[in-house]
Parts: sequence; C-alpha cells; structure tokens
Amino acid sequence: MTAVQDALALVKFDDRGLVPAIAQQHDTGEVLMMAWMNEQAVRATLDKGEVHYWSRSRGNLWHKGESSGQVQKLVDLRVDCDGDTLLLLVDQTGVACHTGRRTCFFRAVRPDGIAETEGVRVDPGTLYGG
Amino acid sequence: MTAVQDALALVKFDDRGLVPAIAQQHDTGEVLMMAWMNEQAVRATLDKGEVHYWSRSRGNLWHKGESSGQVQKLVDLRVDCDGDTLLLLVDQTGVACHTGRRTCFFRAVRPDGIAETEGVRVDPGTLYGG
Repeated sequence: MTAVQDALALVKFDDRGLVPAIAQQHDTGEVLMMAWMNEQAVRATLDKGEVHYWSRSRGNLWHKGESSGQVQKLVDLRVDCDGDTLLLLVDQTGVACHTGRRTCFFRAVRPDGIAETEGVRVDPGTLYGG
Repeated sequence: MTAVQDALALVKFDDRGLVPAIAQQHDTGEVLMMAWMNEQAVRATLDKGEVHYWSRSRGNLWHKGESSGQVQKLVDLRVDCDGDTLLLLVDQTGVACHTGRRTCFFRAVRPDGIAETEGVRVDPGTLYGG
C-alpha cells in the first residue's frame, strides 16, 4: 500500500465527497486554518508534499499558496478516530490567512466584545498582486 | 451586545444550521477533536463555560463529557476570517477521544504505513460505564 492508498482507506468523505482538514503549524502548535479536501486534494498533497485543498467556492483543486507564495509544506497527515476529519501538520511559509494574518482564527469572543488576537502582518495586496 | 450575540453575529452556519468547531488544549496546543455546533450549542457553550456540540448522529445537544466526565472548560472562543469555522481553546479534563486517547487525531499516514501517535490512556469501558 502506498501512503495515498493508506490514507484513502481511512478517510470517510461526506456526501459531497469532501472532508474537513485542519492545518496546524507543526512546531508552534498554532491552528492556522480549516478548509476542505476531496480525494484529488488528498492525493495531490501526499504526492507533492505541499497542501492542496478543494475550493468549494471556485469548484477546483487549490494548491494553497500557488498565487501568494504562502505554501504549506506537509510534515504529517493525521486522520481522526472516525475518519471524518484530517489534521495537517504543516510548515507554513509566511501567513495562512488571506487577510495577511498568520492564522485565520484571529477574532476572539470576549465578554466585552470581539478582540483581535493578532494584527495584519503582510499587506494582502502584496500577496495577491495589485 | 452579549458575548453570545457577538458570536452569533459573526458565525455563518451552513445549510444544515451547523458550523465545524475545532477543540484545542489552550496551553499545550494539542488539537483534540473536531465536532459540530448549531446556534443552541454556541449559546450553551458561552452561557455555561463548558463546551456543547450538536450531535449529528443522535440529533441532539451534546454536553461533551456529560456521561464520561471528560468535560471541556472553555478558555476562549475564536471565529475564523470568514465566519464558517470555530476554534475552541479549552481545558480538557482527561481524554477527548472516545477511544480513551487524549486526541482523536492519533493515526498518522506515513510512507511505511499507518502509525499510532499515542496509545490508549483510559479504558473506554470506564469512561462510558460497563
């Protein structure tokens, strides 16, 4: 069995053929983002060693960082106990969030309102051209 | 605005009224599990300070740890950039996984096969009676 076959044997894709995938920076433990994978994205990620998702909005394979340069090198791929969620341990180049922040989870719900846990590190305009 | 109103104003529930929620141990950074919340689960979690999910299989509100004692005390609730995923920073009592492991993400896809990254810490029989 190849790693791709091993992975696909464990993963239960939903009725849309998708599985949620959480990206975590492998050494610091930061949870960076969550996106979706289909079988093609799992195969591409394991084959190429860089994370690929399935873009639900665009309806195509999405090589994370392809346009921005903010790629995610795969360090380890984990499958949860019931096979319906993936955890990707990655080495994130630069920022994960399209807003220019390291993590997409920068809004905290606090008793006194919404707090931002980090500021913009990179101007989004420089990530996506403009 | 209360914290509940603030949170609900940011969250975009899917067409089933659900949002994926990732639970992470607040101090060690371990990603413990992923489950789903509906509006009722978000309200209960913020009101009571312990994590509640929506059980898709049972179709009811699920106070995590209610039967096993393995509750998740809420430390911080984060909403991602587009509002369609939550990150719950928690203090997990005992183990998160129904298999008796700390995390549900204990299966790693490696070139030489599936590796288990941690063993069973608690006999599942003691968690759920038996």
